[in-house]
Amino acid sequence: MFRTSTCGELRLSDVSKSVTLAGWVQGTRDLGGLTFVDLRDRYGITQLAFNMDTNADLCLRARKLGREFVVQAIGTVVERSSKSNKIDTGDIEIVVSEFTILNASEVPPFMIETNTDGNEELRLKYRYLDIRRPVLRDRLLMRAKIASVIREYLSGNDFCEIETPSFIKSTPEGARDFLVPSRLVPGSFYALPQSPQILKQLLMVAGMDRYFQIVKCYRDEDFRGDRQPEFTQVDCEMSFVEQDDVLNMFEGLIKTLFKKTINVDVPAVERITYANAMQKYGSDKPDLRFDCPIVELNAVLPASEFPVFNNAVTSGGLVAGLNAKGSAGYTRKQLDELTEFVKVSHRGLSGLVNIRFNEDGTVKSSVDKFYTEEQLRAIGEAFGAEKGDLLLLAADKTAKVRKSLGDLRLDLAKRNNWIDESKWSILWVVDFPLFEEDEETGNPIFVHHPFCSPNPEDMQYFDSEPLKVRALQYDMVMNGNEICSGSIRIHNPDLQRRVFEKLGLDEEAQQQKFGFLLNSFKYGAPPHGGCAFGLDRMVMLMTGGETIRDTMAFPKTSGGRDLMMDAPTPVDEKQLRELSIKIDVKTEAK
Amino acid sequence: MFRTSTCGELRLSDVSKSVTLAGWVQGTRDLGGLTFVDLRDRYGITQLAFNMDTNADLCLRARKLGREFVVQAIGTVVERSSKSNKIDTGDIEIVVSEFTILNASEVPPFMIETNTDGNEELRLKYRYLDIRRPVLRDRLLMRAKIASVIREYLSGNDFCEIETPSFIKSTPEGARDFLVPSRLVPGSFYALPQSPQILKQLLMVAGMDRYFQIVKCYRDEDFRGDRQPEFTQVDCEMSFVEQDDVLNMFEGLIKTLFKKTINVDVPAVERITYANAMQKYGSDKPDLRFDCPIVELNAVLPASEFPVFNNAVTSGGLVAGLNAKGSAGYTRKQLDELTEFVKVSHRGLSGLVNIRFNEDGTVKSSVDKFYTEEQLRAIGEAFGAEKGDLLLLAADKTAKVRKSLGDLRLDLAKRNNWIDESKWSILWVVDFPLFEEDEETGNPIFVHHPFCSPNPEDMQYFDSEPLKVRALQYDMVMNGNEICSGSIRIHNPDLQRRVFEKLGLDEEAQQQKFGFLLNSFKYGAPPHGGCAFGLDRMVMLMTGGETIRDTMAFPKTSGGRDLMMDAPTPVDEKQLRELSIKIDVKTEAK
Repeated sequence: MFRTSTCGELRLSDVSKSVTLAGWVQGTRDLGGLTFVDLRDRYGITQLAFNMDTNADLCLRARKLGREFVVQAIGTVVERSSKSNKIDTGDIEIVVSEFTILNASEVPPFMIETNTDGNEELRLKYRYLDIRRPVLRDRLLMRAKIASVIREYLSGNDFCEIETPSFIKSTPEGARDFLVPSRLVPGSFYALPQSPQILKQLLMVAGMDRYFQIVKCYRDEDFRGDRQPEFTQVDCEMSFVEQDDVLNMFEGLIKTLFKKTINVDVPAVERITYANAMQKYGSDKPDLRFDCPIVELNAVLPASEFPVFNNAVTSGGLVAGLNAKGSAGYTRKQLDELTEFVKVSHRGLSGLVNIRFNEDGTVKSSVDKFYTEEQLRAIGEAFGAEKGDLLLLAADKTAKVRKSLGDLRLDLAKRNNWIDESKWSILWVVDFPLFEEDEETGNPIFVHHPFCSPNPEDMQYFDSEPLKVRALQYDMVMNGNEICSGSIRIHNPDLQRRVFEKLGLDEEAQQQKFGFLLNSFKYGAPPHGGCAFGLDRMVMLMTGGETIRDTMAFPKTSGGRDLMMDAPTPVDEKQLRELSIKIDVKTEAK
Repeated sequence: MFRTSTCGELRLSDVSKSVTLAGWVQGTRDLGGLTFVDLRDRYGITQLAFNMDTNADLCLRARKLGREFVVQAIGTVVERSSKSNKIDTGDIEIVVSEFTILNASEVPPFMIETNTDGNEELRLKYRYLDIRRPVLRDRLLMRAKIASVIREYLSGNDFCEIETPSFIKSTPEGARDFLVPSRLVPGSFYALPQSPQILKQLLMVAGMDRYFQIVKCYRDEDFRGDRQPEFTQVDCEMSFVEQDDVLNMFEGLIKTLFKKTINVDVPAVERITYANAMQKYGSDKPDLRFDCPIVELNAVLPASEFPVFNNAVTSGGLVAGLNAKGSAGYTRKQLDELTEFVKVSHRGLSGLVNIRFNEDGTVKSSVDKFYTEEQLRAIGEAFGAEKGDLLLLAADKTAKVRKSLGDLRLDLAKRNNWIDESKWSILWVVDFPLFEEDEETGNPIFVHHPFCSPNPEDMQYFDSEPLKVRALQYDMVMNGNEICSGSIRIHNPDLQRRVFEKLGLDEEAQQQKFGFLLNSFKYGAPPHGGCAFGLDRMVMLMTGGETIRDTMAFPKTSGGRDLMMDAPTPVDEKQLRELSIKIDVKTEAK
């Protein structure tokens, strides 16, 4: 070993010990007679001290050490005269008797400090330097800790970690597959798994009872938002369970995880239905760190000539709104921004009505023409409006109003700093619909995946009104992010066939795509269900990262590139020939 | 939950409890008045009892249960009248008051018993049924346990598990890469990692200090022997270490692993040099569960006219042999088989000389013409030959003799049952050469990979006699299998460049292939080294499997096919178009 101690472990109790440290030069301070070098490793920083009076040669050499030089230093632990409480080793320093430069360093392209001057592109290119920064280093350490606690909890509950293959059959299941050309079977391809969904179900058929795997999954999606081509799931499945068993098991996981990693006591995880979530928060992943629910007004609207509201009510739509507490003082510009926000195409409202409960006791509205102050106050009662509140009302088709107000609710929370970052909102959303309508064809398509079990209570609607059928599906939502999704699966081959048929898969397509699963169900499939957590997103939320890139050692850019390695790249003609493929770049494709 | 207890946990102390079990019907036995059903799950088997006298209806229904039906049974635990010590629950049975068929089963295509009647192809197709067999189930459980103990040991020694990407840059590094076409960068490809070698070195440059990862790796090799396209490594790297530090750390891992999983005390792991291993056992992965070393005879051969031996000695070759203890009675046919064995092309000896120390005290040889009995006895002394022993001698170029006798040594051990299967041979082979000669070109090529550090003691030979330079490389060998390979890496950019140059990579090729590694070395790379264990092979050895397929849930055949899922397959034209590739199957390629 090049060291007897790390740079994070020496304390007052070690004073007068002879030690050898090794690490990187964080910085040097030359105070004339004394020179200090901060030596850094993964575990911390220790101050090295050099004295011109006692060892001028050594001190002169130390002054020449550049940032990020790798140094091995031998010396004695002494108590510091001026202690630092910024670092754990701040009570001591090392009086160095000898040191060796193990490797020199050029000046790094950005500051290796918590607050760096490098932009993200530069830092991705030099990721090995970026990881030296404590903030990223600590996230990677926390990620490992999180994975470790998850494994411990699941193993302790009889879950067996089983590796499933990366090379599977391409069975279009929502997103696009990444493909791997097979050299040994020319013209054929493996697919990389989007999730081990079918394989874990087969492990239940195989009697493995409780399975988990922390596993890489792959989806070839366009990189909108915070996506990576490869991501990591905590994939779980259990046999002989009902929905509540799964919810309780993974509620236990989250509680244990939070306690053992970030020392947070998670209270009982609330369960709300999909229908309720949509109605109250306009989202199937509501953030409940703040309240501000959607208030529906159809039943309480005062009589008026206001056509927008009246039309919405009479055409079966929805009039609803939010109470932006304390925002009555918003300027015209701010109110216009909110209106623009709900008008953008993916929300599509035509506008917002506002009612301002001013501090001076007056009530003003953008629809003063249609409502008396009395009537406005009556509407305000539905919101519990008080002086200083701003009501924002919308009317349109129900789904559009809910979604837009749900988004607006989050936007208001950000604008007004309603979110207490020290709080956690963790809940189960249950009773998702089994099918939804394909916007183009009007046919039922699955909401989650085609293996979710319908709720037996709703089987009466299966043929007549399939959109009414709830699935035994559940999501765990953390601070407004879906971090886990799961369901009780179908284990009856006939029911599985009925669902496939409803999705428009005929016998042949079923056999071709899912034949091996259907076949396995003939040989005694147990009732089973499970879920999968998105590890990257969970780590991001638990470590205060802003994107999932912050939780990965070597992420890709939003264009799918690795800037450090420079991948993907063209490959040799010989490699392609061996794989029996040819490049075929269309001009249009460029 | 569909159960209150598993099928493996009930004991005498549970007698009179009301329980609910769920599992698969292993079999039913109808004894007239009584019917017994063995119910199986992952945890064991419990006997269900039905009585015609007390509940004829239920008993008649139970008699109709087929093998592999999934059943939920409610009943009371009672003490058995005739106990079984074959199963852990053998003292009790369940008097069933009610049961439900959760799923029926067709007759499975092979016996779901420890000894099955299904051939491997059939069992691979119905892998989900094969896994129900206790032998395969227990291997998967043990694999999970092994991975868990490894993680615990490494985490306890400050190794941080870090996920490295699956989509990397294609940098030909020995074997062939599997490629993944990029849709977003048409005409470009990611490679799947053959190992995270460079990435883990970058994590050391990044200051992560101690890294590990249990990770899938991919090599597109022809499937000779026991290979899989995807396999799992326990990949490890440490900073600020010398070779002994790594050897000690992973010797500790193996000891802990064996103790905590199969309760075996591994003694101190012997270290032998590559040179010694080749000389004494003709192999760089010797199996030392038995002795039978190669004995070199050049210096002790009696004077004779035997041209084969004399030519070998005078031309700088080797005369050497093995003592097949107790095999003097081998028949002519058996001796011929041994000769054939060493003659096959990849060994290439022209024959074997035998000397038989018969039980009657006589000494006979296939070269009686050239050696007196006195001389044969003198040769025998070099082997410590006794009555009953058979000496097998060969002469040729040194490498050929060693390799052939090394193979013959293993063959003899198998024939003669020399191997005590309860014994473990675990050792480190150290001091591998850095380079070997390319058989075609005569140029130096790397033995392990181009990042291994030369032994500093041998740098004097680096330019003049590179083949003499030892690497700081080490393998762990278990029962004659390499299960771990590693090295101290180069951390000095200039030395790395010299090695690349020696391997024939010019500046441009270095930059193109390994530029990001060389670049990283400019910014303070610490001394570092590590190793990688082959998890599949290790699990195979520790669970008595015969191939690594026995250690995986869903393996491929030797042709790279998944018989269960039917992969690889052709894919839609649309998928190929999106990836900007075309199938290009040459007739020759078929």
